[in-house]
Amino acid sequence: MRYNQKNLLGLEELSSGQIELILDTADNFKEVSERAIKKVPALRGITIANLFYEPSTRTKMSFELAEKRLSADIVNFSKATSSVKKGESLRDTAENIEAMKVDIVVMRHGSSGAHRFLSEFLDASIVNAGDGQHEHPTQALLDMLTLRQRWGTLKGKKVTIIGDIMHSRVARSNIWGLTRMGAEVTVCGPPTMMPPEVENLGDGGVKIEYDLRKAVSDADAINILRIQLERQKNKLFPSLREYFTVFGVSSEVLRSARNDCIVMHPGPMNRGVEISQHVADGKQAVILPQVTNGVAVRMAVLFLIAGGKSGEAKVEKK
Amino acid sequence: MRYNQKNLLGLEELSSGQIELILDTADNFKEVSERAIKKVPALRGITIANLFYEPSTRTKMSFELAEKRLSADIVNFSKATSSVKKGESLRDTAENIEAMKVDIVVMRHGSSGAHRFLSEFLDASIVNAGDGQHEHPTQALLDMLTLRQRWGTLKGKKVTIIGDIMHSRVARSNIWGLTRMGAEVTVCGPPTMMPPEVENLGDGGVKIEYDLRKAVSDADAINILRIQLERQKNKLFPSLREYFTVFGVSSEVLRSARNDCIVMHPGPMNRGVEISQHVADGKQAVILPQVTNGVAVRMAVLFLIAGGKSGEAKVEKK
Amino acid sequence: MRYNQKNLLGLEELSSGQIELILDTADNFKEVSERAIKKVPALRGITIANLFYEPSTRTKMSFELAEKRLSADIVNFSKATSSVKKGESLRDTAENIEAMKVDIVVMRHGSSGAHRFLSEFLDASIVNAGDGQHEHPTQALLDMLTLRQRWGTLKGKKVTIIGDIMHSRVARSNIWGLTRMGAEVTVCGPPTMMPPEVENLGDGGVKIEYDLRKAVSDADAINILRIQLERQKNKLFPSLREYFTVFGVSSEVLRSARNDCIVMHPGPMNRGVEISQHVADGKQAVILPQVTNGVAVRMAVLFLIAGGKSGEAKVEKK
Repeated sequence: MRYNQKNLLGLEELSSGQIELILDTADNFKEVSERAIKKVPALRGITIANLFYEPSTRTKMSFELAEKRLSADIVNFSKATSSVKKGESLRDTAENIEAMKVDIVVMRHGSSGAHRFLSEFLDASIVNAGDGQHEHPTQALLDMLTLRQRWGTLKGKKVTIIGDIMHSRVARSNIWGLTRMGAEVTVCGPPTMMPPEVENLGDGGVKIEYDLRKAVSDADAINILRIQLERQKNKLFPSLREYFTVFGVSSEVLRSARNDCIVMHPGPMNRGVEISQHVADGKQAVILPQVTNGVAVRMAVLFLIAGGKSGEAKVEKK
Repeated sequence: MRYNQKNLLGLEELSSGQIELILDTADNFKEVSERAIKKVPALRGITIANLFYEPSTRTKMSFELAEKRLSADIVNFSKATSSVKKGESLRDTAENIEAMKVDIVVMRHGSSGAHRFLSEFLDASIVNAGDGQHEHPTQALLDMLTLRQRWGTLKGKKVTIIGDIMHSRVARSNIWGLTRMGAEVTVCGPPTMMPPEVENLGDGGVKIEYDLRKAVSDADAINILRIQLERQKNKLFPSLREYFTVFGVSSEVLRSARNDCIVMHPGPMNRGVEISQHVADGKQAVILPQVTNGVAVRMAVLFLIAGGKSGEAKVEKK
Repeated sequence: MRYNQKNLLGLEELSSGQIELILDTADNFKEVSERAIKKVPALRGITIANLFYEPSTRTKMSFELAEKRLSADIVNFSKATSSVKKGESLRDTAENIEAMKVDIVVMRHGSSGAHRFLSEFLDASIVNAGDGQHEHPTQALLDMLTLRQRWGTLKGKKVTIIGDIMHSRVARSNIWGLTRMGAEVTVCGPPTMMPPEVENLGDGGVKIEYDLRKAVSDADAINILRIQLERQKNKLFPSLREYFTVFGVSSEVLRSARNDCIVMHPGPMNRGVEISQHVADGKQAVILPQVTNGVAVRMAVLFLIAGGKSGEAKVEKK
């Protein structure tokens, strides 16, 4: 089976079959990172440009590792060392990069829709590593892979997303992905952080619950969003202490949830703000397995976009 | 045939035969970037250090891609992440890098002549990726390659370079390269941006023409320089609007030129300042083919400097 | 013989046998960097993360070259382009990187003991590329390799370390390594730059000598520390001129030393501050050979930590 999509712009436009194909392929690739020699020649001679217009540690590193383990050739571009300040338009930059015969562009950009805009005139494939407040599809895919590994399926499962829903591309991608795979999504956060018409997002919409304890009470998993201190400190809620008191997930809050409720966080965590030390390091947390799955999911996406078939993943050794 | 030069410091010191050899080799390498597997093992185990003392996006990326497609090992150095501020001299830095057994140093530096200075005591080869207001030889080579692909030869052709001639290393390298290959060069720009004795630059000198319409009227190609907004805004001319009115290349200006006049720009473009939207995207423009040729030219330069012969380019596959 | 250590945190915890093993292995690897094809497949498919929380040029480049010549896969992290400002703890960052199945973490960090702290909960190996004012073990190993190449042995040799002993991780690592290998160490510098109880550092302690001419008079080698202008200008001594007058190593000072006294400097040099132009470029200096040895020592450390045996170094060709 093939992916049959040139790009990965967001989960909104993927079918459940395409999402399942990515997750299956990622399961196959996961084994590569466990080997002594963590490398397959699948993308040898393929050129990938990583364009990070926003700073990033883990997403950038995860993509780079995925690319290297697939033996691709990589060029990195980050705002700090580039000539972005020379004022060239995004379109001109992208067309220039494509003219160098780059096959896949992995991009993080502060503007929602930047990837869709570029996809209209680039021949190179585009993978969205985060665009503004729109989507962060590989994050949602790794979240879903982590849950599917535990449950076998996402169908009928209940996932609660907690925090600043309005500004979160992680939330949006999870809502699209999870609902399309048949899960039920509840969102929970301060009313000031709830986007208008959030209830209509995703396939069939989501539930809104402002009471944290109620929101976790029958969840199979909770996904705790990072409060982006660097962007909105003290603006959408009175203080960090107050945020923790009302929406922070502590051991006490977790007692309102089921014992087998899975705790996820996309990282980087603000321990003591949106998640307590005990919950972050507790038995229900799968925060590090999420990171491990991130490399596998990104290998799968790049491999499928480059034309690979799911069944070919993993078997080849260099 | 061999290049027989240890370095590429500038086009001023290359013979027409050496320039032709680079262009021929680049034509051969161009095909590598069109393959599914864009890689040849020509420089395997060769170490290249990219030292960018000035920010750069496209030149740095183009060199890196050239190096990766030749299978070289690369270390990058950029001011932003280095310890340059510790105050070591350029010579000490370079000698240290060489002591690590680096074979080729690709460098961009703000001081005119920095490369020549280093070449006097380094055993490693040095490739100039831009030095101050002096030369940017690989840019001129890719410009010439683009023109030669259209015309078959550069001999007797008329090329007009438009803009801030005084501060432009692109202009200087083009003047040296084009005149040496037998083309006629005219320079056009505001008198405040014209270097003293510009008429004596190159083999046999260049023509100066302050009237833009006259300057383009019998040109076979025009090369429109970037106005370096970040450096000289409102200093050498009253305003951007005025610059565009007098020296910006618009569709209306282009009507004074021949229909087959080729339009070049080294990028990044300031659309609406030195070049209009229509001209940048018009049929006469070869701005993206220039970028594609950039990778091929840099592969050729690195390959020849490492001791390769032109005839060996391309045929080997990894 | 095997290294039998998971990490390289500092020389304080290595036995003389382990130090000797690293130096022997480095001697073998040195030849690789002299080849036309500077590459062995020893660490193919192994992932190494270079985390530089402090800026660095030569140490970072030296590690990267060592890693590339061993064919490892590399991800780089530097503060300038990362999301460190998002405020994640060092432990969370490191655990995340490990969750991506990184085999070896090479780290430079401003906090003394950061590496030991991380080593308590990471499965990945940790190599210390400098931690605060504590240790910089690969620098001391390359210093010792350089001396051993001249002398055959370090036993009974006299080495004087000159400068800001208090803030120098280079000094600390040299003191531990040299005394463990049987050399005698003297430290010399302004009293304000001498750490309390310095005489008890290392195996059997070191001598303190405040008079520079006496300190060099019977030394087999002197190691001149960099004055870290960027950190402490005009604080621990009245002026740079005064520092040079009293503790700068000039030709005149060197006349108090033996003719065969070796002059070392870890770089980057402040010519005219801690070392004069003539001494830096003189016949007794081995400053560039130190740099060359740096790559070999780092190849050896990475190779041994990854489980290689000394005898296997070098013989394999890719």
